[in-house]
Amino acid sequence: MKRLAVDMDGVLADVYSQFIKKHHEETGEWLSLNSMTGLSEGQVFPHGRKHITTKGFFDDIQVVANSQEILEELNKHYKVFVVSAAMEFPLSLSEKQQWLDRHFPFIGWRQRVFCGSKEIIKADIMIDDYLRNLDSFEGETYLFTEPHNALVDLGRHKRVNDWLEIKGLLLP
Amino acid sequence: MKRLAVDMDGVLADVYSQFIKKHHEETGEWLSLNSMTGLSEGQVFPHGRKHITTKGFFDDIQVVANSQEILEELNKHYKVFVVSAAMEFPLSLSEKQQWLDRHFPFIGWRQRVFCGSKEIIKADIMIDDYLRNLDSFEGETYLFTEPHNALVDLGRHKRVNDWLEIKGLLLP
Repeated sequence: MKRLAVDMDGVLADVYSQFIKKHHEETGEWLSLNSMTGLSEGQVFPHGRKHITTKGFFDDIQVVANSQEILEELNKHYKVFVVSAAMEFPLSLSEKQQWLDRHFPFIGWRQRVFCGSKEIIKADIMIDDYLRNLDSFEGETYLFTEPHNALVDLGRHKRVNDWLEIKGLLLP
Repeated sequence: MKRLAVDMDGVLADVYSQFIKKHHEETGEWLSLNSMTGLSEGQVFPHGRKHITTKGFFDDIQVVANSQEILEELNKHYKVFVVSAAMEFPLSLSEKQQWLDRHFPFIGWRQRVFCGSKEIIKADIMIDDYLRNLDSFEGETYLFTEPHNALVDLGRHKRVNDWLEIKGLLLP
């Protein structure tokens, strides 16, 4: 069975919706996703770092569309690992655990990895929204589209725009 | 620079001392390390699982002799990652973070990995006290001696009895 490493933020957890919500709570302004194409998260959400390091950010974050059903199906055909670069934000660790328990209960503790750098990850396939994580990975790589990566040069990686595309590519 | 994956419990953190202390607090009996040779942790500490899942177990655990100075030196010659199979015990995550901050402050967040199974770890060298973790690793493997593994068949792995041996083998 092939090993499939799936990123959490931006692939399973809808970080953009959460940033937009926090930005609105702080400023009253609603930002549109379309205005963010090709800009980094830092450019679009200047207070993003403050929000992401505040307790509760990861607690009620929305699930990316169709990720639950399709990952549950993938979990029957692959050894799935959810790999999150969570170590930079120590407060996030328990929130991320609880969030996975709630929304992805079929991903058991053996299948969860919290790391800092993903250069230490060994699997056959990786899905991630950051090139820096895919670049150090030896295997098949899929860049999951988010506004910050919409215009990047893919290099050796393939792009997937949503979970239905992942389904089409990786499920029989 | 080669990547070096170092286990936490039983290699950096002196789990046996802590189990012995907790056993003593519970029963008044002091167990001797010599009596444990070749027995599993579960055989020696029947209440070990209860202790390890209780808040505080990882908080004041002792550091394995010489590990601090030697790992700090290794950190100059290798890309060191501390890799702990911590996911089974969710309460341990923040205690383990704080413990590393306190005793191994030179191991930054980029160098920390909390996982369930170590089959997803890619590095050049792994030091661990459990064969099951070394067996799935593609690279140079060192079994760190603890009572539970004292009599096991090493297979392709090499044995190290303490940190001074690691120093002799891995430092110039």
